[in-house]
Amino acid sequence: MFVLVNLKAYSCDPVSVARAATAVDTEATVALAPQTTHLRAVAETDVRTWAQHVDPIEHGSHTGHVLAEAVADTGATGTLLNHSERRLQLGSIDDALGAADRAGLDTVVCANNPDQVAAVTALGPGAVAVEPPGLIGTDTPVSQANPETVRDAVEAARAVDPSVPVYCGAGISSGADIAAARELGADGVLLASGVAKARDPAAALADLLDPV
Amino acid sequence: MFVLVNLKAYSCDPVSVARAATAVDTEATVALAPQTTHLRAVAETDVRTWAQHVDPIEHGSHTGHVLAEAVADTGATGTLLNHSERRLQLGSIDDALGAADRAGLDTVVCANNPDQVAAVTALGPGAVAVEPPGLIGTDTPVSQANPETVRDAVEAARAVDPSVPVYCGAGISSGADIAAARELGADGVLLASGVAKARDPAAALADLLDPV
Amino acid sequence: MFVLVNLKAYSCDPVSVARAATAVDTEATVALAPQTTHLRAVAETDVRTWAQHVDPIEHGSHTGHVLAEAVADTGATGTLLNHSERRLQLGSIDDALGAADRAGLDTVVCANNPDQVAAVTALGPGAVAVEPPGLIGTDTPVSQANPETVRDAVEAARAVDPSVPVYCGAGISSGADIAAARELGADGVLLASGVAKARDPAAALADLLDPV
Amino acid sequence: MFVLVNLKAYSCDPVSVARAATAVDTEATVALAPQTTHLRAVAETDVRTWAQHVDPIEHGSHTGHVLAEAVADTGATGTLLNHSERRLQLGSIDDALGAADRAGLDTVVCANNPDQVAAVTALGPGAVAVEPPGLIGTDTPVSQANPETVRDAVEAARAVDPSVPVYCGAGISSGADIAAARELGADGVLLASGVAKARDPAAALADLLDPV
Repeated sequence: MFVLVNLKAYSCDPVSVARAATAVDTEATVALAPQTTHLRAVAETDVRTWAQHVDPIEHGSHTGHVLAEAVADTGATGTLLNHSERRLQLGSIDDALGAADRAGLDTVVCANNPDQVAAVTALGPGAVAVEPPGLIGTDTPVSQANPETVRDAVEAARAVDPSVPVYCGAGISSGADIAAARELGADGVLLASGVAKARDPAAALADLLDPV
Repeated sequence: MFVLVNLKAYSCDPVSVARAATAVDTEATVALAPQTTHLRAVAETDVRTWAQHVDPIEHGSHTGHVLAEAVADTGATGTLLNHSERRLQLGSIDDALGAADRAGLDTVVCANNPDQVAAVTALGPGAVAVEPPGLIGTDTPVSQANPETVRDAVEAARAVDPSVPVYCGAGISSGADIAAARELGADGVLLASGVAKARDPAAALADLLDPV
Repeated sequence: MFVLVNLKAYSCDPVSVARAATAVDTEATVALAPQTTHLRAVAETDVRTWAQHVDPIEHGSHTGHVLAEAVADTGATGTLLNHSERRLQLGSIDDALGAADRAGLDTVVCANNPDQVAAVTALGPGAVAVEPPGLIGTDTPVSQANPETVRDAVEAARAVDPSVPVYCGAGISSGADIAAARELGADGVLLASGVAKARDPAAALADLLDPV
Repeated sequence: MFVLVNLKAYSCDPVSVARAATAVDTEATVALAPQTTHLRAVAETDVRTWAQHVDPIEHGSHTGHVLAEAVADTGATGTLLNHSERRLQLGSIDDALGAADRAGLDTVVCANNPDQVAAVTALGPGAVAVEPPGLIGTDTPVSQANPETVRDAVEAARAVDPSVPVYCGAGISSGADIAAARELGADGVLLASGVAKARDPAAALADLLDPV
C-alpha cells in the first residue's frame, strides 16, 4: 500500500512529520509531499519525498516555474500532477509527465472521477489517483461516501492500462480508511488534512499507519 | 467524411464562406466554425455551424464566458474543444463536454498526439481530432508530414472506444490532403488557413471539396 | 450617469431586456452586455451594446478567442474588461485595451478595490469600475455596504488621471442605489442580477431607471 | 544600485554563483533568485536570496503553490512578482504583494512598459522593474535599445508614487550596462542569462559587479 501525505500549504513542521514517517514500523510505503521550498530538508530525513507539482518545462528561460531536475536534485523521488488544487491543461499533464520521466521522478496524476482517471491513465503515468473534489479536506473518506467511485476508477484505469496503480484520496484520516480503500481495489491513498491539520501531525501519522 | 472549417480570428467574411459551403455539391459533411459573434449569421445560411469553444459553465454568474445553451440558441449544432490555441484543463474538457451534451451540441475534442487522443476519447466526446501543433498553419499536411501520427491516433482512440470518430488536422489545404487523411483511417479533417487565408476563401473551399 | 447592465450567462431573454432599455425615458445612458453570441441581436434593437470581454489578440490564428473587430462588427460599441468573473493578467488588460481602441470600442476596466482602480486607471481605459467581489450577486449595494470603497476608488482614479470616469458595482438593484452611487462621486454603475434574475427583467430595468 | 540575478531554470549551480556574489567587493546590493527548490541552499551562503515568484495564498489547502511564509522560512528575504515569464492577474499581483508583506518579504513587481509600471506602482510594491519582453534573453541591453523606455518608466512610477524604486532589465550583461541604467534614472537592474548562461557564471558575476 502506497500512502502519500500531502502537506499542501499547511503550517505544520514538515521535518517533524518526516521524522515520524521514518520512525513508524509499517508495511506501507510512505511518502511525504512538503512545499517546494522544503523538499531538501524533508529528503535529508531519508523519508521518501515527493513534490506537489512540477511544470512542463526544460532547463532555460522560465522564471517562477518548478523544474523537474531541480526537484530531483533535492533528493525528492516523485511528484504529484494535476491535483484538484493545481489543475493542468491536458497537454501540460502530458508534457509534465515527460519532464518528470526525464528527471527520474515517479508520478501520480490526480483526477476527479473515473472518466478522468481513464484519460490520465492513457498518458502513461507512474500511477493515478481519484479524488472527488467535494470530499477533499472533509472528514468523510471517499471509500465511505463514494465507494463506487473508487471501484469504478480502478476498473476504468485497468481497462486502459492494467499496469498502472490506482490510488484514492479525499477525507482519509485513519488506518480503517486505508484498509477500506484497499478492499475497494486501491493500491494506495493520498491524504493531507488528516495529518497536516492534526494537533500533533507526527502522532497522527503514526496512528494512521500503525494498523497498516 | 466530416470537414470542419475553422475560421479562427481570420479576417475573411464568414457569411460568404458559409454560402460557398452550402453551394458545393459534395458527399462530405461540411461544418463552419466562425467567431462566436458570427454564429447566428452563419447559421442563418443553413450551413452546419460550430462554435470554436464553449466554457464549462451553466446558466448563472459567469461574465465573459461562452455558454453552451447560448451557442445552441444561435442555431449552431456543435463545438470544438481543447484546440491547441485554446487548451483546457483536463477537468474543464470533461465539464465542457457535459455542458455541450446538456445543450444538444455535438463535440470534437482536439489533442496534440496519439496519447492525448486516447485520453480525450476516454471522456466520451462526439469525436476526437489529432493536430500536431507544429504543423498548424503550415502548408504541410499532417497526412504527409506525420502519417504515422494519424494512424496511431486512430488506433489509440479505437483501443479506448471504437465508436468515437477520429479526425486529423494541421496543414490540410487540398482535396488530395483530405483523401490522404481518409486512407490513413481518419473519419474527417479540420482545416483553417487553407480556406480562411486564401485570396478567395469561398472559391478555395469549393475547390477543396470538389473532389471529395 | 452611465448604467451598464451585464446579463452574464443568466437565462433571461436579452432582446426583450434590450427593447425595455430602449423604451425607458431616462437621462441615464444605458448599455446592455449580453452573451457574445447575442451581441448582434441586441445591437439590432438599437440599444447601446457592450461585450462582456474581448481577448488581447489581433486578426489571425486564435481559435476560441473574442476578437475586438468581430465584436465591433456586430454593432456593439464597448466592452467590459477584467470583470472579477473574468480576471486578466495585467499585461493582457493593457493589450486588450489596445485591441478595443483599434476596433473603436469603448472600455470599462473592473477592479476589486481602490488600489487596483488606480492601477487600471494608469493604463488609459475609457472608464474604470470598482466592484468588491464579496458583494457581487448580493442584495447589498456597494454604496451602502462600503461607501468608503466608492469614495476611495473615485479619489484613487482621480489622483492618477482625473479624466477617467469611475463607476461602481455589486449589489445594485434600485434607482435609490444608483442615486447613492452618484452621491459618492461615481459617474455610473454596473449591475447584473438585479435585472437579469428578476421575474420580469424588462420591468425591473424600467423600474430601476425610472427615477434616474 | 540593486542588482538582482535571476537564475530562472538555467542549469548553472546556484550555490557557486551565490558564493561568487558574496565574495565580490562592490557597492551594489546583490541578490540572487534561484529555483524555489534551492532557496535554502542559496540563503545558507549568506547571499541576499530572493524567490522568483510567490502565490497569492495563505496557509491552507493549496497544493502545488508557493507560500510566502515558506519562502521566508528558507532565509530568503524578497520575491519577484509578475515576471514576463510568470505573468499574473492584476488582482493576484495585489494579493501576492499582501502575502509577501505578511511574510516580511521585499518585492519587485515586473512590467512590460511604462504604463504597466505606473499601474503596478499604484499597488504599493517594494520596487518595480521595466523589462521589454522582446529584449529578455538577448545581448542588447534595454538601456541601449530603448533608453526612453527606462526614462519613461522612471517618470511614470514617480508620478504615481515617488517613493518606489524603479529597476530595469532585459539584455543586461556588463558593468557598463548597469552604469547606463543608472544614468537613465534606474535604481537597480535585473539580469539573468548574462550570468546564468555564461561558461563560468561565478566569474561572469564578479566581472559584472567589479566596476560598480
